[in-house]
Amino acid sequence: MGNVIFVTMALDLAADPVELTAALVDVPSVSGNETALADAVEHALRAQARHLEVVRNGNAVLARTNLGRDSRVVLAGHLDTVPINHNLPLRRTGEGEDLVLHGCGTVDMKGGDAVMLHLAATVTEPRHDLTFVFYDCEEVEATRNGLGRIERELPEWLRGDLAVVCEPSNAVVEAGCQGSIRVEVSTNGRRAHTARAWMGVNAIHGAGEVLRRLAEYEARQVDIDGCVYREGLQAVRIGGGVASNVVPDECVVTVNHRFAPDRSPEQAEAHLREVFSGFDVRVTDMAGGALPGLAHPVAEEFAAAAGGKPVAKLGWTDVARFAALGMPAVNFGPGDPSLAHTREENVPAAHIRRCAEVLARFVSA
Amino acid sequence: MGNVIFVTMALDLAADPVELTAALVDVPSVSGNETALADAVEHALRAQARHLEVVRNGNAVLARTNLGRDSRVVLAGHLDTVPINHNLPLRRTGEGEDLVLHGCGTVDMKGGDAVMLHLAATVTEPRHDLTFVFYDCEEVEATRNGLGRIERELPEWLRGDLAVVCEPSNAVVEAGCQGSIRVEVSTNGRRAHTARAWMGVNAIHGAGEVLRRLAEYEARQVDIDGCVYREGLQAVRIGGGVASNVVPDECVVTVNHRFAPDRSPEQAEAHLREVFSGFDVRVTDMAGGALPGLAHPVAEEFAAAAGGKPVAKLGWTDVARFAALGMPAVNFGPGDPSLAHTREENVPAAHIRRCAEVLARFVSA
Repeated sequence: MGNVIFVTMALDLAADPVELTAALVDVPSVSGNETALADAVEHALRAQARHLEVVRNGNAVLARTNLGRDSRVVLAGHLDTVPINHNLPLRRTGEGEDLVLHGCGTVDMKGGDAVMLHLAATVTEPRHDLTFVFYDCEEVEATRNGLGRIERELPEWLRGDLAVVCEPSNAVVEAGCQGSIRVEVSTNGRRAHTARAWMGVNAIHGAGEVLRRLAEYEARQVDIDGCVYREGLQAVRIGGGVASNVVPDECVVTVNHRFAPDRSPEQAEAHLREVFSGFDVRVTDMAGGALPGLAHPVAEEFAAAAGGKPVAKLGWTDVARFAALGMPAVNFGPGDPSLAHTREENVPAAHIRRCAEVLARFVSA
Repeated sequence: MGNVIFVTMALDLAADPVELTAALVDVPSVSGNETALADAVEHALRAQARHLEVVRNGNAVLARTNLGRDSRVVLAGHLDTVPINHNLPLRRTGEGEDLVLHGCGTVDMKGGDAVMLHLAATVTEPRHDLTFVFYDCEEVEATRNGLGRIERELPEWLRGDLAVVCEPSNAVVEAGCQGSIRVEVSTNGRRAHTARAWMGVNAIHGAGEVLRRLAEYEARQVDIDGCVYREGLQAVRIGGGVASNVVPDECVVTVNHRFAPDRSPEQAEAHLREVFSGFDVRVTDMAGGALPGLAHPVAEEFAAAAGGKPVAKLGWTDVARFAALGMPAVNFGPGDPSLAHTREENVPAAHIRRCAEVLARFVSA
């Protein structure tokens, strides 16, 4: 990894954030292997942002101003990526306004990290105190998430009046996030030989009613603070069957429900138990959403700086962790979130520049 | 295996067929390991049924009279069993009329084999010429089936005017057999993240219509020669799903259709394509049924000897192989066929005795 560290020593935080994105992409950082990139970020901040207090925690790097401002804005971005999928080294298409960076980590989320690093180094007298959180292991199981570790070990570093998570949002403000709950809906029957099928009860046939309810389900669209959350209820897996000549006695449909943040996970569960009444329903996984919280003055100010109308965040992001701490929290970052985790992931240079400009405008006096 | 051969040398064909069943069960013969039992059967026939021509073919043993009778009856039974499932050695419950033999192979089908061996040794001047076929590998893939090998290598040994397959039939005549066809019915969709489900098409939801048609399907009951065949259409497996947050783009329902022998496999396939019109249907497996053929004089005579009304065979057995050769073919053997392949398999002594009596009456002058 020696050559990687050599490359990262050259990170130029004050220069073009598009080139900074490219430099970050050039340091691979698949979850669990973020040391080289965390080292580079730490060294660059210590050398080029001397107005910040910098702390290293595992493979997370924390930096903040301590100017005694009335309010504090926390900006967060993860340093890790999903596994490389034949999409490194970085590739460029287009030029100038049409330049696009392609490759692992471009959209998720080194473009956002570059915007944060650029802001950290270039705005030395912000209107709000600023906290920058670069963290590890966001793309793996929640128990390894670096933000969770910081919450346990250095909780004061996450406190503030607004959290901006720089995950891709097409460079518009996405507010709050939807919750997600997964349940297994089971049907039961009685085994029999298929030659004497009337002696059994077919659990797969019984699941037809579960699928009917899914197909006929009308998902809510919920308007909160002007953000419209579009819910969803989808079977993501189905399985059943004993042998090729046996009437099966069990069938399990795994259902994922994405729900607007006006409902708690418990309310979402109660709703699913109602939708699937008469069936066995077992919760396997749930995560609450986050209300947009746009009524808060600092959030309102940020939305104004971004211009346009905030939209609802539909996926689940670490925004929900900040919301759980009682802070308004938004997503704001370059690139199309639907490209995340795809081999074709890319980020437009214009998005990176726009995000950098909006954030600079928001925090400049 | 020396001790096994020692045991089998003691097979007494002329004695009580119930005790002969027990002796056969005491020689394990899981498919592919029938040598010891085939040796015992061959030696016993050569020593105790000197009126028969005996031929050994692999682990099959063939024996026949050559009396120049006007008609010939072929009796067939497989020597192999499914794997032993903690159900050996043989166990007995009850006494006298209530005696039941428990253990691997009792019902499927050493009770039937014992009835055949007893008949072979004790009726030396039958009214019909008799052919006895004891064969191997019935419980495994069709390509290894010993009866198929005999059909290829010694086809004249299977010819006759009636075939009696001594598989368990509760000691009543079960005529013909149903056909079986398996198809995979697939639905397709378009993947999307579940947070933006409206961008996708859920293939599992689409399978709801397949399950609805299955649940609403009204199976035919077909009367042929007084035997009522009850058809069935059952999902035996369902599978679909990509990941826990992805709208799935494929779902496959495996369906097993058991059909009465008035339909050919091709007609059954055409019927399924109609039932599942609009869906992708792929045939994975099919086997034709067998018409009961009870109008044939020798079959009629056998049914009369058995008394009572022949019933339809619902499962698929090697009866269909004989039917394909143009012969009337029936199942007639001791024990409850629904116990076959279960750990609890057993055969009542009374069934064994009844079958032996019916066959002796049928072939005696």
